[in-house]
Order: sequence, then C-alpha cells, then structure tokens
Amino acid sequence: MNIGTYSYEEYVQLVKSFHGSLAPGLLIGGFIVDLALKRLPEGEFFDAICETPVCLPDAIQLLTPCTIGNGWLTVFDFGRFAVTLYEKQGGEGVRVFLDREKLKAWPEPYHWFFKLKTKKEQNYQELLDQIKAGGHGMLGVQRVRVEPEKLRRPKLGAVGTCAVCGESYPLAHGDRCKACRGESPYLEMAPAV
Amino acid sequence: MNIGTYSYEEYVQLVKSFHGSLAPGLLIGGFIVDLALKRLPEGEFFDAICETPVCLPDAIQLLTPCTIGNGWLTVFDFGRFAVTLYEKQGGEGVRVFLDREKLKAWPEPYHWFFKLKTKKEQNYQELLDQIKAGGHGMLGVQRVRVEPEKLRRPKLGAVGTCAVCGESYPLAHGDRCKACRGESPYLEMAPAV
Repeated sequence: MNIGTYSYEEYVQLVKSFHGSLAPGLLIGGFIVDLALKRLPEGEFFDAICETPVCLPDAIQLLTPCTIGNGWLTVFDFGRFAVTLYEKQGGEGVRVFLDREKLKAWPEPYHWFFKLKTKKEQNYQELLDQIKAGGHGMLGVQRVRVEPEKLRRPKLGAVGTCAVCGESYPLAHGDRCKACRGESPYLEMAPAV
Repeated sequence: MNIGTYSYEEYVQLVKSFHGSLAPGLLIGGFIVDLALKRLPEGEFFDAICETPVCLPDAIQLLTPCTIGNGWLTVFDFGRFAVTLYEKQGGEGVRVFLDREKLKAWPEPYHWFFKLKTKKEQNYQELLDQIKAGGHGMLGVQRVRVEPEKLRRPKLGAVGTCAVCGESYPLAHGDRCKACRGESPYLEMAPAV
C-alpha cells in the first residue's frame, strides 16, 4: 500500500519529520490526498482546497506540489475533514472526505475523531492500525466544480514603503501597512543589539 | 554558508522539491529564518509568525518544526517580508525582516523586490547570486513580545454532524457547518461514480 509516491512507512517518517509527530489526522489525511490524486479529472495543473486548517494541510503539502507559500493551496476553516484537487483553468475537481458512515466500521478512529473517548481510554497503536487497515475504505468521493479565479491569490501589485514602520508593503493595502493600521500582534518591539 | 541545518545547495534542492520552483523570495526567506534561528531568545519551544502569505511561509515550514497543519505557524497578510520566532509561554521573540536600506546595496534583489524591472530586464542568475552574496547583510533584527494566547489556534471542541451536508464539523461553528452557511467554494457537487 502506497501513499502518493511513498510507501506507507516512508510517509510515516515524512510526517514525523515535517509535522513533528505522527498525528492520526495526518495518516487519514495521507489516504485522503492519495485517493484524490488517483481520481483526478482530466487536466495538467491542479490546485488544492483544504477544508480545515488542522493537520490536513500538511498532508497536501507533503504529497502534492501545492503549498501555502506558493499559493496553490487554499485553506478554509470549515472544520470538515476534506480535500479537493481541482483543475486550475476549468475548475473541475475531485473532493475526498472522511465519510462518517463508513468510519463507523473502524471503532478506534471513529471514537478518536468524534472525541468519544478520552486520551487515556484510547489505544494509540490500535488507532493507527485501524487507520492503516481502513485506508480508502473510510472515505467518500465527490465530483465538484469551483470558480478558479475566486480562489486565486490576488497579485501583490505595486510595492511601497510604509510611512510608519518604514518597511515595504503592498500599496493596495492603503496609506500604511496593515500592521501599522492596528493589526500588529506585537506588544513591544525594539532593535536587537 | 549554511541555511538552518542545511548547506546552501541542499536548501536550494529542498525549495525546488517542496515549493516547486527556486523562488528568489524563498532564498531570501531561508536567510531570514536562519538568522532568526541564530538569534532565538532563551526558551525551549518556539512558534512562528509569518507576515506575508507569499513564499515566506514555506521557508519557515522547511527550516523549523512550525507548519500550517500543526498550528505552530501563524500567517498574517501584512505583505511585510518578515518572520518572528517567539517563545510559546512568555512570548519573547526575535523578528527578522528584509531591510529596505540594506537591500539597496544589492541592486538586483532591490529591483526585483520593489518591481523596478520587468521580468525581461531581470538577470535571474545575477539576482540569485546577489541574494546568496547578500545573505544576512540584507536583513534587520528586532526583539519583540507577543501575547502567545492570542496567537494560539482555538481548540476544535465538540464535533457534531452537520444537518445539511451530513459531514462532521465543530459544533462551536453553529447549527450547521460554515460551508453550508454560504461559504462553500463549490458551484456543483455530485457523488463520484
């Protein structure tokens, strides 16, 4: 059994190295992305949608060319465990999701996903084993269509210098950068010695 | 010269493989993250802030344990080319940014960053060479403090089943999932045959 172009064991190592831990969600995510890759519609270039920011984006970044930084991955905060790969021009795509009904056949992942057991009650190894055994069998597949231009990251446009902080920013953001318009997360800032 | 724990050449290969192309912004980003790692304040665990969604998040994901999926990386859309690594508990951090004044010493990266040359006028190899030569010399460093709890991803909380689509979603989102409350990017959906 492969996940993308990796063996299951290679993928497990990759997850540990990139994500920092063997999160069960990333194992399920591996199967989700793998199935989406196998059911791609016609086309040459695909972008990705992830319907939750939790865990799943890392499976996409590891198994497809789509990353946050290159703009080919759009993350929505729907809290749905689903991935869509769609053709960049026409918007035809395949959506793979964790199917609640099918998941019932796999009690450990089911209890884990719906938080029906405390961490102490969970059998972690059994959870991983059942995810591996369940594989594509826990998933549903849909054909979807999106409007690619609505998902495309807007071009940065002209770059200027913020009159307040003196750093570069996109002039389209207004007369100063967003951080200097009150969105800064910094309580204190000082030049480093 | 190293970037993080990689040689420059290893990092270049990593960028090509993960990001899909040798984006100049990811080379500068490599130096930004590398300098931040070298100037970390005291502490054991660090989270990351990226002040632009363009390119730079991938340098963080490649060189630190912080990813979008594990929640240790927060991306702001300020359009400032800056990265902060901060200690998870107290919020003390180091911010490294592309310094406009220092960048002036390196004409190709300067012209590229401020879009003062068309793509045709640019000398791509000279651009990469000057970035490599400029390295940390193009960057500024600040000490910052953040409120870690404001940046922490909220816990998912209880998971339920959406009455409309039948998929699982965080009950904290309301009586149905956000996608079924009008935020769905899908124009059409059909079960796959």
